[in-house]
Amino acid sequence: MTQVSIIGPGAMGSAIADLVRRSGNSVELLGRDDTGKPVTGDIVVLAVPYGGVAGVIAQREGQFDGKVVVDITNPVDFSTMDSLTVAADGSATAEIAEALPRSQVVKAFNTNFAATLSQGSVGEQPTTVLIAGDDAGAKAALAQIVTDAGLRAVDTGSLSRARELEALGFLQIGLAAGEKIAWTGGFAVVA
Amino acid sequence: MTQVSIIGPGAMGSAIADLVRRSGNSVELLGRDDTGKPVTGDIVVLAVPYGGVAGVIAQREGQFDGKVVVDITNPVDFSTMDSLTVAADGSATAEIAEALPRSQVVKAFNTNFAATLSQGSVGEQPTTVLIAGDDAGAKAALAQIVTDAGLRAVDTGSLSRARELEALGFLQIGLAAGEKIAWTGGFAVVA
Repeated sequence: MTQVSIIGPGAMGSAIADLVRRSGNSVELLGRDDTGKPVTGDIVVLAVPYGGVAGVIAQREGQFDGKVVVDITNPVDFSTMDSLTVAADGSATAEIAEALPRSQVVKAFNTNFAATLSQGSVGEQPTTVLIAGDDAGAKAALAQIVTDAGLRAVDTGSLSRARELEALGFLQIGLAAGEKIAWTGGFAVVA
Repeated sequence: MTQVSIIGPGAMGSAIADLVRRSGNSVELLGRDDTGKPVTGDIVVLAVPYGGVAGVIAQREGQFDGKVVVDITNPVDFSTMDSLTVAADGSATAEIAEALPRSQVVKAFNTNFAATLSQGSVGEQPTTVLIAGDDAGAKAALAQIVTDAGLRAVDTGSLSRARELEALGFLQIGLAAGEKIAWTGGFAVVA
C-alpha cells in the first residue's frame, strides 16, 4: 500500500486521486485550507498550475525530502498560447528538480486530459501516462499505481524528456483550445 | 490536379508519393540520379534526412521559389538520441523557411511513421497529419491532398508550432527505438 498525497483538488488533482483509489492505494487530497497539514504520502503529486508550484514548495519546505514528487504542469503562456514560459532547452520539471534536490522528481500526467484519466481511454486506446525522470525506482513506483488502476504507463526516459512531454502537452492543449480536438480526446499512444 | 514533387525516394518519400497518388493528384519522385531534373510540382516535399536538406536547397537554388515546400524532417541527434540538433527555441522548419524566403514552407508528416501513412491508420484511428506553417493557403493545399487520400489533416498553427511537432516526432522515434511502441503505431490523434 502506497500513500499518495495530492496537492491541489482541481480537475486534474481529483482525477488523479480517483486513479489512485482505483489502484487500491491510499490518497490524501490537500487543498488551500490544508496548508497546515504536512504531506504524509511517499509520493506527492503537485497538482497545482505551474505558477503555483514555487509557492507550494516554499510553503512546505523540507516536507518533500526523500519523497517522489510528481510534476504534472504544462507551463503554457496562456496569454499568447504561443509558447511555454520555461527556458527553451529546459522544463518545469527541471526547475522543480533543481528546487528539490533531496526529492526524486518525475514528470507525468501532463499529456493526459483529466477526462481521459477518469474514462480510462482515449478513443479506443487505454489512456497512457507518459513518465520522465532520472530515478528508475520513482518512475516504477508511479507506473505501478497507474497500471494497477487499469491504465497504461510508458517510461519515456530521463528527466530531460520532460521538455518533449511539455511540448506535447502544450500542443495538445492548443489543439483543444482551438477546437481541433475535444478535451475528452487528444493524443493516444498506440503500442 | 496538383502536381507534387517529392525529393527523396526513401521509406517516407515513397509512402507520401503513394498517398498523393491515392488522393488523385500527380506525383514525381526524384532520387539521387535526378539532380539534373528541375522540380515541376507546385508542392515540393523534402523527403531527405535533416542533414541532407541544406545540400538539396543549394543544389536546386531558385527551383523552390513561389512553391509550397514541405519539411518532414526530425532533426534528432541520432548519436545520443537525447536531443535535437536545432536551436532549442527553433526548428528545422524555421531554418528551412529562412533559407527559402520566396517559398511557403510548412511542416508536416514528421509525426507520422511511414507505415501509418501506408496503412492509413494508427490503431483504430485514421492517421492524422499534423501541419504547421505561416501560409494558410499552403497548409490548406496540403491538407486537401491528405484528406483526399482518406487520412486526416490538422492545422496545428503557425510555423513556430514546428518546434512542438519536432519534439513530438523526436519523442515518438525514441519510444519506437526503445521498443516501447511499434514503428506501425505511435501517437494517434483522437478528435
